[in-house]
Amino acid sequence: MIAAHVYDAGGVETVTVDSESDLEAARNADGTTWVRVAAATAEEMDAISRVFSIHALELEDIRNDVRPKTEEFPDHTFVLVKTASLRRGETTFDEEVETRPVGLFVGEDWVLTLTVEETTVPAVERVWRSVENREGRVLANGPDFAAYRVLDRIVDGYFGLLDEIETTIEEIEDGVLEGPDPSVLDGLNAVRRDLLSFRKVAWPTREALSVLARGDAAHVRDPTEKYFRDVYDQLVEIVDLTETYRDLARGARDIYLNTLSQSTNEVMRQLTVVATIFIPLTFVVGVYGMNFAGGAWNLPELSWPYAYPAVMLGMTLVTLVLVVHFQRESWL
Amino acid sequence: MIAAHVYDAGGVETVTVDSESDLEAARNADGTTWVRVAAATAEEMDAISRVFSIHALELEDIRNDVRPKTEEFPDHTFVLVKTASLRRGETTFDEEVETRPVGLFVGEDWVLTLTVEETTVPAVERVWRSVENREGRVLANGPDFAAYRVLDRIVDGYFGLLDEIETTIEEIEDGVLEGPDPSVLDGLNAVRRDLLSFRKVAWPTREALSVLARGDAAHVRDPTEKYFRDVYDQLVEIVDLTETYRDLARGARDIYLNTLSQSTNEVMRQLTVVATIFIPLTFVVGVYGMNFAGGAWNLPELSWPYAYPAVMLGMTLVTLVLVVHFQRESWL
Amino acid sequence: MIAAHVYDAGGVETVTVDSESDLEAARNADGTTWVRVAAATAEEMDAISRVFSIHALELEDIRNDVRPKTEEFPDHTFVLVKTASLRRGETTFDEEVETRPVGLFVGEDWVLTLTVEETTVPAVERVWRSVENREGRVLANGPDFAAYRVLDRIVDGYFGLLDEIETTIEEIEDGVLEGPDPSVLDGLNAVRRDLLSFRKVAWPTREALSVLARGDAAHVRDPTEKYFRDVYDQLVEIVDLTETYRDLARGARDIYLNTLSQSTNEVMRQLTVVATIFIPLTFVVGVYGMNFAGGAWNLPELSWPYAYPAVMLGMTLVTLVLVVHFQRESWL
Amino acid sequence: MIAAHVYDAGGVETVTVDSESDLEAARNADGTTWVRVAAATAEEMDAISRVFSIHALELEDIRNDVRPKTEEFPDHTFVLVKTASLRRGETTFDEEVETRPVGLFVGEDWVLTLTVEETTVPAVERVWRSVENREGRVLANGPDFAAYRVLDRIVDGYFGLLDEIETTIEEIEDGVLEGPDPSVLDGLNAVRRDLLSFRKVAWPTREALSVLARGDAAHVRDPTEKYFRDVYDQLVEIVDLTETYRDLARGARDIYLNTLSQSTNEVMRQLTVVATIFIPLTFVVGVYGMNFAGGAWNLPELSWPYAYPAVMLGMTLVTLVLVVHFQRESWL
Amino acid sequence: MIAAHVYDAGGVETVTVDSESDLEAARNADGTTWVRVAAATAEEMDAISRVFSIHALELEDIRNDVRPKTEEFPDHTFVLVKTASLRRGETTFDEEVETRPVGLFVGEDWVLTLTVEETTVPAVERVWRSVENREGRVLANGPDFAAYRVLDRIVDGYFGLLDEIETTIEEIEDGVLEGPDPSVLDGLNAVRRDLLSFRKVAWPTREALSVLARGDAAHVRDPTEKYFRDVYDQLVEIVDLTETYRDLARGARDIYLNTLSQSTNEVMRQLTVVATIFIPLTFVVGVYGMNFAGGAWNLPELSWPYAYPAVMLGMTLVTLVLVVHFQRESWL
Repeated sequence: MIAAHVYDAGGVETVTVDSESDLEAARNADGTTWVRVAAATAEEMDAISRVFSIHALELEDIRNDVRPKTEEFPDHTFVLVKTASLRRGETTFDEEVETRPVGLFVGEDWVLTLTVEETTVPAVERVWRSVENREGRVLANGPDFAAYRVLDRIVDGYFGLLDEIETTIEEIEDGVLEGPDPSVLDGLNAVRRDLLSFRKVAWPTREALSVLARGDAAHVRDPTEKYFRDVYDQLVEIVDLTETYRDLARGARDIYLNTLSQSTNEVMRQLTVVATIFIPLTFVVGVYGMNFAGGAWNLPELSWPYAYPAVMLGMTLVTLVLVVHFQRESWL
Repeated sequence: MIAAHVYDAGGVETVTVDSESDLEAARNADGTTWVRVAAATAEEMDAISRVFSIHALELEDIRNDVRPKTEEFPDHTFVLVKTASLRRGETTFDEEVETRPVGLFVGEDWVLTLTVEETTVPAVERVWRSVENREGRVLANGPDFAAYRVLDRIVDGYFGLLDEIETTIEEIEDGVLEGPDPSVLDGLNAVRRDLLSFRKVAWPTREALSVLARGDAAHVRDPTEKYFRDVYDQLVEIVDLTETYRDLARGARDIYLNTLSQSTNEVMRQLTVVATIFIPLTFVVGVYGMNFAGGAWNLPELSWPYAYPAVMLGMTLVTLVLVVHFQRESWL
Repeated sequence: MIAAHVYDAGGVETVTVDSESDLEAARNADGTTWVRVAAATAEEMDAISRVFSIHALELEDIRNDVRPKTEEFPDHTFVLVKTASLRRGETTFDEEVETRPVGLFVGEDWVLTLTVEETTVPAVERVWRSVENREGRVLANGPDFAAYRVLDRIVDGYFGLLDEIETTIEEIEDGVLEGPDPSVLDGLNAVRRDLLSFRKVAWPTREALSVLARGDAAHVRDPTEKYFRDVYDQLVEIVDLTETYRDLARGARDIYLNTLSQSTNEVMRQLTVVATIFIPLTFVVGVYGMNFAGGAWNLPELSWPYAYPAVMLGMTLVTLVLVVHFQRESWL
Repeated sequence: MIAAHVYDAGGVETVTVDSESDLEAARNADGTTWVRVAAATAEEMDAISRVFSIHALELEDIRNDVRPKTEEFPDHTFVLVKTASLRRGETTFDEEVETRPVGLFVGEDWVLTLTVEETTVPAVERVWRSVENREGRVLANGPDFAAYRVLDRIVDGYFGLLDEIETTIEEIEDGVLEGPDPSVLDGLNAVRRDLLSFRKVAWPTREALSVLARGDAAHVRDPTEKYFRDVYDQLVEIVDLTETYRDLARGARDIYLNTLSQSTNEVMRQLTVVATIFIPLTFVVGVYGMNFAGGAWNLPELSWPYAYPAVMLGMTLVTLVLVVHFQRESWL
Repeated sequence: MIAAHVYDAGGVETVTVDSESDLEAARNADGTTWVRVAAATAEEMDAISRVFSIHALELEDIRNDVRPKTEEFPDHTFVLVKTASLRRGETTFDEEVETRPVGLFVGEDWVLTLTVEETTVPAVERVWRSVENREGRVLANGPDFAAYRVLDRIVDGYFGLLDEIETTIEEIEDGVLEGPDPSVLDGLNAVRRDLLSFRKVAWPTREALSVLARGDAAHVRDPTEKYFRDVYDQLVEIVDLTETYRDLARGARDIYLNTLSQSTNEVMRQLTVVATIFIPLTFVVGVYGMNFAGGAWNLPELSWPYAYPAVMLGMTLVTLVLVVHFQRESWL
């Protein structure tokens, strides 16, 4: 599906492109043209390739979803980026980073955006709408400015994704403090996977944008460079945040492991307190349960009149001493 | 709110700027002008942008609180830095790094400082006062020197923040040695978060200052460069300290985990000592509690005259042997 | 064993090379020649060395299986790469990365591939067959394009290997969640070894290809460079994936260790629950098993009419209180 | 306190400097002059600053004890280094790295060393004495050679410090193997702190010396460069050693933690052996302590003539089987 | 001890050098000269220094055993390398990396090798012998080729050392799987120390050789460079292997720690199984060991005719249920 915005002094005109000649007309129209391609057929691809001198490898790169990058061609600058969003799964912490490739081709007086799937990519869609609504003012700043707008939207999406991840980490941290629940670990692993996946998008995008920002791209004009530098700065921040969140996830895991060790320690203390108090007492009552008999030396205590209260008192005293001892060492 | 110091050979004159023409007058005045902007309205922003040829993106960068950086413009050098301070929360270790952006624009014979919020930033305020009090001598060294003074103050604040973090780490270390208290972990996590947040400020600031220090900035004159190099050296030290403190925090966590392991180990030893001594004894007294009867082979011990004292003596001996054994292995 | 494809405008001719003069004829034939060498004898090696001016050290590098690399020679570009595949062992997780060196020599109008062992390397074999089947069209693009096709195939094999490793990691992760089984650890160690071995192949290959991709190689023509850049991009992705998988393996190990700690914690809790409930009760029944007699103070309870039900009730109540307590702390 | 060595063809003359004119005389004397400043008063500082054109910031850097560095000035090269030594505290492992700044200013035919405190820095003192004793031969090689000698001495001190740290690590390792003593952890933390502090000195010193070694410093003559390269090589080695020692300290901590885990494991085994043997036996004797009576089915064993020996024998057999089992699994 | 090979068209002549004039004669002889110095006296050193214009610092570097390096001098290239071998100690895992410095000086038509100790370094010795045996063919390729041969031998020794370390790691891994034996930890620590020591040799050697391999050394001729590149490639591989082995050692440690955790977990399970089964049973038999009497409510069970078999059956059933439960959770 191919559509084109053609901007001329007067305003913007939107064209549906059905044939290669339509495409050529759009390209050669006066003013700035934005050709938007989504879910193109093989023939449409061929036509695009011919009309805009786009190399077959570039189109294949988009289809194969390779790493983001910027490449210079005689006629145009090719920027391959990816949108990224978080797809929540069934359980709380089951989530995954979903990416979709967007190809941007910036020529002398045209820009072409190419997406693979039918469903429109929101970042592209919104800028496309804003061209329609604001009578092409976006295109008035040249094709590179339109490309900047799309990239800016995509990078805004990255910040949204990172916000969601931060929320998840905070939920996990709260969960950790409430008690050592093994589901927390799954959540942390999911977050780590997300950050790894996202880093694989953000790092090369930063590289790709640095090319546009530092003035090496032939089809980025000087006044637009400032804007690309701004997006580049945002990406540096995003990569920074990714690292920070990985560190926080690691911190949450440490706390989790600690809570577990702490809990084991406390369980052991309780066991030890119970055992230390009652095992000796059980021994004592066992002594007076023995059946020795027949002789003045054999358990004479058994027949002393106050033996039972004396023994009970003795055991109570020992217990009190132990309880005080355990309380002093704050085991109780 | 806009105010300006205008320094001329004679001394310093302080002007309140109410309109764009005031602003232009201040800018074009003979001598060096320092324009201080705080919590400016949208109209004031526009006026500033026009009078000092400041690009809209620069002002947006300050508002959006992006990473510190230095950017060169035809008319001026733009430095975006951040003050950092520690905001203590309710509990002992609940603290957070708070940052506030400060924009510095250094022109030929003017310097402009811009802060977003109403409350004055202490670093800017103190230099501003010193200009008033010392009859403008700060401005006598040119606008870049005034910028240096503000940056120097901000970086001094970083050292203050790191001192507070060091104190917290020391408190935690002392706490760790007193016993494995889980609140210690929260404290360590807070410190780690603080250091991560602060690093996100300090690293790019170092980069931003290296541009000023190594003579690449058009509006920094040779004699002032030395001063910027000095601030840059301080920032290198700050980044170093940040890493050192992260390492110390990691060390404190290790000690904490160890104390916990050590404690579990000791708890287990105590349990084992109690169990090893009393469980066999309880078995022995259980034996003589059995009711076998009717036959010379059935528990003849029960009727031996000195059986009871003999058994008690035997158990005492076994206990003594075990106690000596445990003491030798220093379990007691 | 030496064979050659000679491509001329007309089509492709396949020659078996038996003598040095055959080799020279193949080399000097009009059009593009691909000489494929496998398991060559020492004499064949000498002939190749003489005819194509290949340095003895290059041949030795292939035999010694050194790190992948690209080297420039006056007459040709030498690329040493390795195929990598996973050889499954006897047990589930017993697997090993197997590599085989492939030497590529790209000259003006000839390309020579050299493998050490008799068995054909699939990557070379498949391109060789495609030259035969498609009447030499691969060679029509020049010797460097044929080299690209072989490299592309080899790198495709890397992706296959990484897919297998990913499957193994996922199997391990599933195994970990089912319970702490020590065989899981062996599996993780095997994966880590695999990734280490594979990284030793992938990293230098990336370096070797960067030389070809950035236009530094004399025998790579401009139109082919794009293709090498494409393979290079794939290798960057492969190195990335390697790191990601190492991280995932580390994550699986952490989960494993956690599951173990968790399990120990639960075992301890169960023990503590059983001990905390029954040890005191056993003490109580021990008390009433004592044989004190002869006096109003010696165990008068024993003869109270409802003593037994009362004691049993008391013990049941204590047990209930403890069970409720343990359930509240979710120990049960 | 200012003193000066003035070296001329004839020999060395030592002058005490009391006034600014003395200082100027020393500076302008024929031959090479070494001015040594220690604990200078504010006026002396001013005089030095004026006579040798030393910038106020340089003097401040020394006072503020900032990171080591080399800076070029029109008239001289400024090198700021630090001596480092280990100050042992009260307890065995209580030690701290103590540093003292030394400023070196190398001019055309003069060298100036500046230390802050009254007590003489041994490294400076020893070279100063050797100038006196050997009739100025050190100064005969120029002021840069004298600076080299001082730096060489300081770096020798670094090796001494590292030797002491190595000794401490070895003591700790020996202590770890003797048993899990918590004081070991304090020792390791002290070592880690020391290495962190020392690294903060050694790293920038290496940078500072690389400037002198690679011929970028205007006041270092070609024949002296070799010597600085030598000191630089030593510093590279020192930085290397620092990393190695950090790794060894980490290794010692791992061993410590392991010894602890090992000990806990053994304690648990002992407990389990005792409990596994005696708890079932206690149950058995409990059975025959029951008071069932009145019927052929109620504990008929009690009246069998050889019941007691039979039960004892049975229990002994069970115990033997368990002991053999535990010994086979090497738990005993 | 100084000896020299002098190679001329005719063949090789071996000379023992006794005086400075001998040395000069050897140096100035037609053809290529290799002077081998071992355990030289101070006078010999001086003579060498004079005849070959070798700086005192170079000789000192060899004596002081500093880091490997390549340095350019007007007359010669100085390469300092080290042989490395593993010295096995008394116990199995007690081993240490032993290094010995070798100085190589490559001039226009001479090469000088210098070792400190009396005992001959095998790497030098073997090349020396091969010159004798093969009539100087090694020297026919120039002094730089002879240096290459010595370096190649030394690096071969590195591979041997790494092979030994790999064997040790494999022995340790096998030991770990057999059971958690603390001697394993000592072995791992020894391996880690070895790898740290060896890395300190291999890293700078790689740097030193990169200078020779990339054509920066004045006394390495073009045809020899290829050979140095080959040695350099081997060193890159060696450094790689060092890192891989460190990783494997870390992996073995992880497995060890896991085996320990696993073992503790199993010990705890066994204890818990025994305690969970027998502690309640002991309570039950304790109940029927109580001496309540005198009333229909006091332990009427004691006199029921089938009470004993019923209780025994009940306990057997409970035990069976628990055993099945534990088997289902695979605790048994």
